[in-house]
This record gives sequence, structure tokens and C-alpha cells, in this order.
Amino acid sequence: MNEAQIDELARRLENGERRALARAITLAESSRPDHRAETRALLHRLGPDQGKAVRIGLSGTPGVGKSTFIEAFGCMLVEQGLKVAVLAVDPSSARSGGSILGDKTRMERLSRLPQAFIRPSPSRSELGGVARRTREAILLVEAAGFDVVLVETVGVGQSEIMVAEMTDVFLLLLGPAGGDELQGVKRGIMEIADLVVVNKADGDLKPVAEITRADYASALRLVRKRRRDPEGFPTAMTASALEEKGMAEIWDKIRALNDWRHESVWFTRRRAEQAVGWMHTAVKRGIVERFHADPAVAARLPALEAEVANGTVPPEDAADQLMALFEGK
Amino acid sequence: MNEAQIDELARRLENGERRALARAITLAESSRPDHRAETRALLHRLGPDQGKAVRIGLSGTPGVGKSTFIEAFGCMLVEQGLKVAVLAVDPSSARSGGSILGDKTRMERLSRLPQAFIRPSPSRSELGGVARRTREAILLVEAAGFDVVLVETVGVGQSEIMVAEMTDVFLLLLGPAGGDELQGVKRGIMEIADLVVVNKADGDLKPVAEITRADYASALRLVRKRRRDPEGFPTAMTASALEEKGMAEIWDKIRALNDWRHESVWFTRRRAEQAVGWMHTAVKRGIVERFHADPAVAARLPALEAEVANGTVPPEDAADQLMALFEGK
Repeated sequence: MNEAQIDELARRLENGERRALARAITLAESSRPDHRAETRALLHRLGPDQGKAVRIGLSGTPGVGKSTFIEAFGCMLVEQGLKVAVLAVDPSSARSGGSILGDKTRMERLSRLPQAFIRPSPSRSELGGVARRTREAILLVEAAGFDVVLVETVGVGQSEIMVAEMTDVFLLLLGPAGGDELQGVKRGIMEIADLVVVNKADGDLKPVAEITRADYASALRLVRKRRRDPEGFPTAMTASALEEKGMAEIWDKIRALNDWRHESVWFTRRRAEQAVGWMHTAVKRGIVERFHADPAVAARLPALEAEVANGTVPPEDAADQLMALFEGK
Repeated sequence: MNEAQIDELARRLENGERRALARAITLAESSRPDHRAETRALLHRLGPDQGKAVRIGLSGTPGVGKSTFIEAFGCMLVEQGLKVAVLAVDPSSARSGGSILGDKTRMERLSRLPQAFIRPSPSRSELGGVARRTREAILLVEAAGFDVVLVETVGVGQSEIMVAEMTDVFLLLLGPAGGDELQGVKRGIMEIADLVVVNKADGDLKPVAEITRADYASALRLVRKRRRDPEGFPTAMTASALEEKGMAEIWDKIRALNDWRHESVWFTRRRAEQAVGWMHTAVKRGIVERFHADPAVAARLPALEAEVANGTVPPEDAADQLMALFEGK
């Protein structure tokens, strides 16, 4: 794209044109150097709406009904007059057999609303790439006028931490505890959760959901001591995505927390920390990329890997050799 | 240290002298360039026993009785005529208020045995540093003639994955499921566990422990499909560290698995992969260290961080500026 084309894409995106938005995100997902440069140029041109949405991170254990929840929650937000973007982060999609959001039919109602925009996780990329793409996609949907960005991730590995680092509020979705269900909740996740929502509080499961909520409420009280939060946060609630119950209450809580954080130094400080953290991430990524792109390194690497694998060269010596090649250029 | 002193340290360490071993590990824990060079020289001199021990990774939820377990398990191994080293990995020790192994009195019996060696986690270092130190400590205790290395970590964040990547067998210790206890078990951890041991199978808790074991056995059957393991693995067992029950059975299982893996290609391939992975880790770490040590980068970084924090420079642009400074030297 030339300058004029980038200007045109920026203009259409800021008008809220969905196709322009989709195209811009596709551009941001690419790792081709020319596409990277175009994405950067586009982000520079985009106006002051970047950073203005409520950014919500969302995670949950498998089978908890995350798609149903996002559908119910997203439709409720749209009914309140808000524009909602849903971005999926699933670095493990290759392994786990496809992104939760790969199939938009799971959120059929929401995906048909003009005030909603759903974007599945790009297929098969490593966590670093997903992080960059998601951060840029957040800025792009904000520039396109979306008020709420839901960044949804699957409950594995580092992806929650990554999503928490690019959002303002973190919502953890759980099921009512069942005897045979492992509630795979990490301690680390409890520490980043602002709202724990026990879904499926409907029918026979309602009493179990309430007990589960109370259990998590106790657990969160322990967490709270270590954090700076307003009274009543982090909080545990019940909801039924199926019956669309509890959605407005969750949004009220999120807004209350968000308002408090805007009034305190929290919000400004957090966004500043996120930006600095992102700079360091970009540097690490960049220098490792340059290292691997170095012809001398690339030429030596396969043989050296074989020597390390069969034990003839210690790993640290091999690393030194490679770094000497990199610096010698 | 000069060459002769390093030779002398290597000789004493290979003789199994505890003070030499402790000194060598202290050397490996240091990040001073001269200490790094001395550690590397020492590892080069050490004989073929490096790599010969059974390396067991161990993790467990807080309050599960990990110290009691290590004491009972370690003493049983010593009674069988084996030398046992225990290394603690706790990158969060600064936050959580001290390493589990910081206080050796928790393993009073084991720590007094001449055939045992217990080394607490070094205080306050980031995960990368802990990884390198632990990997080198494993090689050092092996050179000192230890037959079994227990690498123990707390159940948070990435540390289990890191420990699994430097050991052969991974043991996950759990408590009998209680109503108010969050068994903070991540899916990822279930996937790396070879043995799940439900501790505290004594007194009133015995029946609950058995139910918990059966639950985890079911969960492990799902995991198994995705792995290449002999019949019966991964496995779930009960034990009572307090009553010293189940310890020999656990060791039998570990040996059976280890024997199978040595007979198959698994073991050789795994150690080769670990070595290559370590080379890449060392490279990443090394180039990021060199980046931060660069005078031009160091001079510009504080001002640039401030500009990124207050939003005047986008993070990616700042990263580009820094990388240009780094490459310009």
C-alpha cells in the first residue's frame, strides 16, 4: 500500500466500516516486513480513540460455556447501545483442535449484530506473535469506535497473563464445581482475576453454583490483601449465560471497578506500565528475530544443534559460538 | 580462581566433598562474568557422571506437605543405599515470603544424613537465572556422585514447566480434595505429570485420598492418549509422608518408568531436545543481556521509557530506536 491507500484505509476504519477493520487486522496479523511497516503507519494515522474502550480479558476452563457467555454478555451490551468487539487469543489452537471462536456459528446472534465484531484467533502462531497481533487489533477496533473489547483466551499456559497485560479488567469464568470436574484454576489466575463468574447457575446446578461462588469468594478475600482494589473487589458472582441472567450485573460491576480505577492513579499507571512492558517485549522479540535472520547464524545453526543434541558440544558453548557469529557481522 | 584452583575444586567435588559441592553451586548461582567463566571451566573439567542421576521434578499445591514428603521419600532412598540431592526452585520466593526449603529444619532428618544434600533456592532472582543455576546445580550434584536429584518447585507460574524441561520424571503432589481447598492444578501440569501422588492418605483423610486418587486417575487417562508412555503411565497413587507409607512404591514406579524410557528412544531423544532447548535459551538470554549492557542503549533507555509511559512515543517506535542504537555500535 502507498501512503494514500493507508490514509484511505484509516479513514474508512474510523468511519466504522467493517471490511476496512477486518482488512486492517489481517494486515496486523501478517509478519511480512512490508505488512508490518504498513500496520505501523496505519496505527500512527489513527485518531485519539485508540485506548478509549473498556478492555476486558476473559478466560475460563474448558466446557464452562464461554461462547454462550460471550454471546449473552455481548448482546446485552449491544442492547445498552454499545459497540462490542470480541478478539480470541488461542496460541494452542493447533494443538487443541481449533479456536473456540473459529466457528462463529457458536455466537450466531452476536455475530449477526452490526454493533458487534467477532474476530477468531489467527491459526498457528506462537505466543509472541499472538500478543502483538492482539494488542494491535485492540487499537484498531478502538479506532473503529468500539466501546468494549472482550479479549477471550483459553485456560492454558501463559496466555491469560498475556491477555491480562493488555486489558484493564479480567473476568474468570468457572463452572459449578462437580465431583469429576477438575477446576483447572491456577493460583496465578486467581491473582489476576477481578471478577470470578460461576456460570451455569440455572436449573439443578443453581445451588452448586452458589456454593462454588462462596468458595471462590473466600479464596478471593485472601488474594485481595495483596492488591490495591476498591472495597468489594475482586468479586465472585453467579450467572446463567443460557438464561441470560446476571449479565447486566456483571457489566455494572465492571463499570464500577473501571470508574474507580480511572479516578485513582491505577488506570494511568497501568496503561503506562503496559506500554513500557510492550516496548521491552518488542525489543526482545526484535533482537531474537534479527539473530535468527543473521546469515552467519543461520548457516551454522543446524550443524551446531546436531552437535549439542549428540552431546559433543555443551549448550552454553554453542550459544557462545552463535553469539560471536552474530556480533562479528 | 586460577586453573589449578578450578582443577582442585573439581577433584574435591568428584570425591563427594560437601563443602566443595556447596561452593561450586554458589559459584554457579553468581551472575558475575568471572564466576560464570569459572563455572563453565569447572563443568568442562567434571567427569562423565554428569547426566547419570535419576532427575525427578516435584511440584505440589501449597499445604500439601511437600517438605514432609521429601523428607520421607529422601530418607527411604538413603536407606536403599542411594545418595539424594534436593534442589529447590522458587522464583517467587521474594513474593511468597521465602522458599519452602529456606528452612532446612523442616527436613531435619534428611538434612543430617551424609548421603543427602539439600540446597535451598537462591534468593530473589528471575526465572531465567534460576533455570540456569538449577541446570548447572544438577550437573554438579551428579558429578559429586548423587544418584537421585529431586528438583522441587512451588506450584506457581512457569516454574513447573521449567523444572519438567530439566528433569526426566515429574511427580505432582496433591492433597485429598477438601471442600474449601482449591486444588490449583493447571491442565498444563497434568500434562507433564508422570506420577500424581495424593499425600495425607492417613487417618480420617484416607477414604477421601482414595477418591481423589481415583478422580485424578480418570483425568490422567485422558491425558495419556496424547503421550507416548508405557502401559500404566501416567499413574495416580496415594501416600502418607507422615506415616512414611507408599514411598518405596513411588520409587518402584519411577524406576519402572525410567527403565522403560532408557530402553526406548525416549530418554536419548529427550536429553538431546533438552540440550538444544537449553542452547536456544542461553542465546536468547545472552543477546538480551548484551543489549542491556550496551552503553548507547543504557544511556537512552530511561528517557525513552518515560516517553513511552506518557504516551508521546509508541512502544514499537521506541523498540526500533533502541535496536538501531544496539546495531549501530
